[in-house]
Amino acid sequence: MKKIKLGIIGGGGDSLIGILHRIAARMWDRYEITGGVFNPDFELNKKYAQQFGVDLSRVYPDFDTFVALESQKPKDQKIEVVSVLTPNALHFPMAKKLLENKFHVICEKPLTTNHKDAIELERLQKKNGTVFAVTYTYTGYPIVRHMKHLLSQGHLGKVQKVDIQYYQGWINSVIHDPEKRKGVWRLNPKVAGISSCIGDIGTHAFHMLEYLTGLEVTELLADLNTLYDHNPLDVDGTVLIRLNNNAKGVIRTSQIASGEENNLSVAIYGQKGAFKWEQENPNLLYQLSDSEPRKVIKPGNTYCSDFANDGTKLPAGHPEGIFDAMGNIYKGVAKAISEQKYFDGEFPTLYQGKRGILFIEKVVESHKEGNIWKSL
Amino acid sequence: MKKIKLGIIGGGGDSLIGILHRIAARMWDRYEITGGVFNPDFELNKKYAQQFGVDLSRVYPDFDTFVALESQKPKDQKIEVVSVLTPNALHFPMAKKLLENKFHVICEKPLTTNHKDAIELERLQKKNGTVFAVTYTYTGYPIVRHMKHLLSQGHLGKVQKVDIQYYQGWINSVIHDPEKRKGVWRLNPKVAGISSCIGDIGTHAFHMLEYLTGLEVTELLADLNTLYDHNPLDVDGTVLIRLNNNAKGVIRTSQIASGEENNLSVAIYGQKGAFKWEQENPNLLYQLSDSEPRKVIKPGNTYCSDFANDGTKLPAGHPEGIFDAMGNIYKGVAKAISEQKYFDGEFPTLYQGKRGILFIEKVVESHKEGNIWKSL
Amino acid sequence: MKKIKLGIIGGGGDSLIGILHRIAARMWDRYEITGGVFNPDFELNKKYAQQFGVDLSRVYPDFDTFVALESQKPKDQKIEVVSVLTPNALHFPMAKKLLENKFHVICEKPLTTNHKDAIELERLQKKNGTVFAVTYTYTGYPIVRHMKHLLSQGHLGKVQKVDIQYYQGWINSVIHDPEKRKGVWRLNPKVAGISSCIGDIGTHAFHMLEYLTGLEVTELLADLNTLYDHNPLDVDGTVLIRLNNNAKGVIRTSQIASGEENNLSVAIYGQKGAFKWEQENPNLLYQLSDSEPRKVIKPGNTYCSDFANDGTKLPAGHPEGIFDAMGNIYKGVAKAISEQKYFDGEFPTLYQGKRGILFIEKVVESHKEGNIWKSL
Amino acid sequence: MKKIKLGIIGGGGDSLIGILHRIAARMWDRYEITGGVFNPDFELNKKYAQQFGVDLSRVYPDFDTFVALESQKPKDQKIEVVSVLTPNALHFPMAKKLLENKFHVICEKPLTTNHKDAIELERLQKKNGTVFAVTYTYTGYPIVRHMKHLLSQGHLGKVQKVDIQYYQGWINSVIHDPEKRKGVWRLNPKVAGISSCIGDIGTHAFHMLEYLTGLEVTELLADLNTLYDHNPLDVDGTVLIRLNNNAKGVIRTSQIASGEENNLSVAIYGQKGAFKWEQENPNLLYQLSDSEPRKVIKPGNTYCSDFANDGTKLPAGHPEGIFDAMGNIYKGVAKAISEQKYFDGEFPTLYQGKRGILFIEKVVESHKEGNIWKSL
Repeated sequence: MKKIKLGIIGGGGDSLIGILHRIAARMWDRYEITGGVFNPDFELNKKYAQQFGVDLSRVYPDFDTFVALESQKPKDQKIEVVSVLTPNALHFPMAKKLLENKFHVICEKPLTTNHKDAIELERLQKKNGTVFAVTYTYTGYPIVRHMKHLLSQGHLGKVQKVDIQYYQGWINSVIHDPEKRKGVWRLNPKVAGISSCIGDIGTHAFHMLEYLTGLEVTELLADLNTLYDHNPLDVDGTVLIRLNNNAKGVIRTSQIASGEENNLSVAIYGQKGAFKWEQENPNLLYQLSDSEPRKVIKPGNTYCSDFANDGTKLPAGHPEGIFDAMGNIYKGVAKAISEQKYFDGEFPTLYQGKRGILFIEKVVESHKEGNIWKSL
Repeated sequence: MKKIKLGIIGGGGDSLIGILHRIAARMWDRYEITGGVFNPDFELNKKYAQQFGVDLSRVYPDFDTFVALESQKPKDQKIEVVSVLTPNALHFPMAKKLLENKFHVICEKPLTTNHKDAIELERLQKKNGTVFAVTYTYTGYPIVRHMKHLLSQGHLGKVQKVDIQYYQGWINSVIHDPEKRKGVWRLNPKVAGISSCIGDIGTHAFHMLEYLTGLEVTELLADLNTLYDHNPLDVDGTVLIRLNNNAKGVIRTSQIASGEENNLSVAIYGQKGAFKWEQENPNLLYQLSDSEPRKVIKPGNTYCSDFANDGTKLPAGHPEGIFDAMGNIYKGVAKAISEQKYFDGEFPTLYQGKRGILFIEKVVESHKEGNIWKSL
Repeated sequence: MKKIKLGIIGGGGDSLIGILHRIAARMWDRYEITGGVFNPDFELNKKYAQQFGVDLSRVYPDFDTFVALESQKPKDQKIEVVSVLTPNALHFPMAKKLLENKFHVICEKPLTTNHKDAIELERLQKKNGTVFAVTYTYTGYPIVRHMKHLLSQGHLGKVQKVDIQYYQGWINSVIHDPEKRKGVWRLNPKVAGISSCIGDIGTHAFHMLEYLTGLEVTELLADLNTLYDHNPLDVDGTVLIRLNNNAKGVIRTSQIASGEENNLSVAIYGQKGAFKWEQENPNLLYQLSDSEPRKVIKPGNTYCSDFANDGTKLPAGHPEGIFDAMGNIYKGVAKAISEQKYFDGEFPTLYQGKRGILFIEKVVESHKEGNIWKSL
Repeated sequence: MKKIKLGIIGGGGDSLIGILHRIAARMWDRYEITGGVFNPDFELNKKYAQQFGVDLSRVYPDFDTFVALESQKPKDQKIEVVSVLTPNALHFPMAKKLLENKFHVICEKPLTTNHKDAIELERLQKKNGTVFAVTYTYTGYPIVRHMKHLLSQGHLGKVQKVDIQYYQGWINSVIHDPEKRKGVWRLNPKVAGISSCIGDIGTHAFHMLEYLTGLEVTELLADLNTLYDHNPLDVDGTVLIRLNNNAKGVIRTSQIASGEENNLSVAIYGQKGAFKWEQENPNLLYQLSDSEPRKVIKPGNTYCSDFANDGTKLPAGHPEGIFDAMGNIYKGVAKAISEQKYFDGEFPTLYQGKRGILFIEKVVESHKEGNIWKSL
């Protein structure tokens, strides 16, 4: 099997997202990191390239040069897919240019900074038919995939209530001190855009919900919290939702849930039972029932679905983690590029990225207009 | 120590609430069950009395006779405190008459069926100074008391977010079948009043919140769910709240969370950390912090507060349950009656019962008026 | 239903075991505490009796008077069953005399201080056919009973390995200081007998094993630990065992497992799967399987056995604790006395108490003789 | 930083151990997989090399050619370190030859098939001073490293009891059927050597114990179980141990613990408290105390040691798994090779591998000679 030539924009040095993507790309022997622009400073860029084992001839001084020169290469030498790991505001222009030049794209979330731009990307992608993934990492866990599979097979019957939580506490340590707060880019509207908490983690919770259930949120009512008047962006918010099958639910997010680390938790209740899952313990899926003992479902077992097993590397009881989840998303993209055959849901799509942006916009609108219902 | 003479109205036969109160009353050797009206049918009433070991001379054919004859007894023979375990609509008239006749009262929740009646009870009690407890059982757990103690001592600093959940699933098994539904009194507005889910369990969640934090909910916005149009009462609801210290929060309740049993869960986040507790695992309290390992606090340990230890009968590691929680509430009432010295929060008060009714009313109003903010 | 007249020997004042037995006796409305000798000091004895609500006419100055006078009472007034809560060395002479006078007996563990005495009690009981229970409290939990039921129904197939742990840490806080150690009666051979750890908690673990599986230990090899040479009694020990179905296993016990509270844990592995249970979380039973998701079994559910449900007072999700476990044992004894109809295993028998003593003796022999195999 | 040139022997195709080592090697950008012999079949070998992105010029037809040709390369081109992933019996001859030719070695466990060979390897390594790691993967978890650190700092005081469990259930599904059993190489003495259970997983438990505590096992007494007489190798075993600080303990292992997946669990009790950890939930470390609430320690927090943080790639709450654990071991080896500066315990050493073999031999001897004490 020929390896897919991958370019990376951003993610050099100590960037955590860079480490995550590089390890994920190498995990299944499907990619070679062929080139990229790892840093705007060309010297650093080259230094990182060496560190990552990338040939310097494919390391470019800037993004435009990257696109210009890689586009001209013969098909069998050309970088085929590009991971965009730059600051949020650059996602749109870069993804746009990559699409215009027919690269496949793996883009960090959030896809864009506004819904209009996301629509434009969708238009371009539909036109040229390339593969486009948005890296909502958490949907790469094998057992999340199994949950999606079981839901699609009707194991819970009709979904009648959803409750998704994403609680972190890290902003608690800076929010109470205006000086410390200044140093946090997520709290600066010029950099972070219209939202901190919803934009960063609420969108993950929203994606998880639509990803798992296959349903769509049709209406929402949000109450955000900035904790201090002079803090312009939300650090906490609760969103009442209604789904297109008439179920109701709630999405709860916080960055001031002191002591919480990265507590993304899912509860989906249907007519026949429920699923519960927590990201910090990602290899356990609980299935609840009105009439039977609850089940603890773990990856790597013979009873797991093909979709789950396809993303599991070792036998049951060998815990995988978040790097493995991202690795599974990269694997899905590789299959889409090379074989055009992959599981539904094997990577989050541009459409799902676009939905995530719309969610952020509507939540902020609902809150600003007095906690009223908004349609999506 | 002389035992307190206790009368019980209701709770005969297989009544679960009757078993709970009787065991609780006997648990600390503080009460003797002296008399009562265990059933409207006098024959059954007497049969139950024998079963409970109650002298038939103190078993009365009806409530009015009970009050009339017991009131006339000499002080040292008279029943001092009466437990009201009758259907909800009878709580008010019975409690009123008991107050008018200067009995101490232990009343099952909900205190009344409307806020106006609760105000009237409060007026009467203030006038005659008797002890009045409303049995929100869950606040009787030792470790819940310890949590209240730690919060009052400022262990979390200022509370900045609260999230209380009370999810059950038992109505899922009847809600989808209109025939089955008819047999459930909680879904019948004539018996259950204006609410099923909020009235039955939402009020527990609300009480737990105000009990633990010492704060009060000032505003709320609710979205209820009846699941079917032809089902008149809510079986699920989410309530956005604002507290009198400006913190925000959410109370989440459901009776259609399929597979959940009795999942009352508390999360209180303050500037210095958080507390998390789950009723189904009632002997574990988690204390979270931004900077230290989380702690697992268990009752019966030397590090526990006097308030917690006062309600713990055996050394650490011997799990107590819900009967013990109710026993602690009865013990608190006994101390209030006999020694007039007890811990703040040793039993839920009439004031707290009144708040619970107001909560139910305002939630239903908020929902009916289009999910708008209502003041409490 | 007529209440059974219960006498209690010992357990007055702050005695924890006294509280546990009194609450248990009252829990199901099956007993009235009619009389007893709660303390060797007659004044204290009478004081406690008043506290417990016992008529002073049935409170006796000593055990012999109790037996003499109660034996002469007419059948319908006589105390029928006696709970023996005295120090261990008194169990045998008291139980013997009670048996000789045809009382039913509820005896705290250990049944006796040596196997020979236990055989004598068994002989007497067989002769007169009275009911005799030994209060190994932990087998009273509803879900333990369910586990026994499922095992008896072959849900695991042939048992092929057992692993029972009973770890406590409380002696750690005294063992390192010879002065402190002197104050602990369990470490004094004159009071505690031949063993501390095995005698106190190892015997619980052993009973749990034989109770659940219906199998018997045929051979054992033990390694005990006194931690210090000048500490005469074991505070820790591991026992290799062989069962009468040829399975092997291990019983692990410690009182110096620092930080452990009361961690009795059971793991039973059969050809078709396994059961795992922990006493500190007594309402959860895990059923493991090679081929299916593990199940979490909880009491109060429709899928539970009659035996489990018979000992469950409230619906699923209302946690019961150790007082409820003991209450179930008392209920079983009441059924045995009144109806002669009860579940197999509804209370631990004299035979099981005798096995427990034999276990202690053989463990100590094995260790003293150089960690060699001993037959039971 | 220059990447270390890594050769791999074995691990081609679907080999799970191959995937684990390759991902681990790439994880921290410290190695390039330069060459190797991935399969004895040269065509397959080359096929796998292409799949792994290895230049065919460094892919050799057999191990001897690999050593011969790589040894002759100039220092800056030569493969420096070789991972030995071949069947157990080949570990010794290959490692020996690699040591004789001054390669650094990463060897899968068990190091050899007998203690004598391990001594020979140790002699060679001491002579030439190369780096030699044995991949006991589980000690690579960040929180295991933190536990080792805390123990070395005396956080528990003197260790007074250890209890290590390694329970799996996978052999249960084959052991009862002699036909199925034949297909399992671990049960074939010709391939697996003198032990199945102790050799495969008991040695992990033993290593974990000595690794964490820094203590050594001085004596052991073992009872093994083959379950069937005609099954020659142990599938279960319990080992009583004594440590060089006079503490006692137990190592418990099983492959017939039906339903268990990969349950390696650690409990270490000291004078000041205890640590408990479970491999299937590898990011939680419990610290118990006699006098304080137990603590839940998680990686990625500011309170963690440098040793733990050095092996943690993302902020707290982003779970890492077993691939990350192995990645940390590879990182340690890289530091040892390149910088000669690394944490004590950053990778398991040849000495520890040798101890593991001695343990297996002594356990089998103890059992065969009638469950008697053997010195290590």
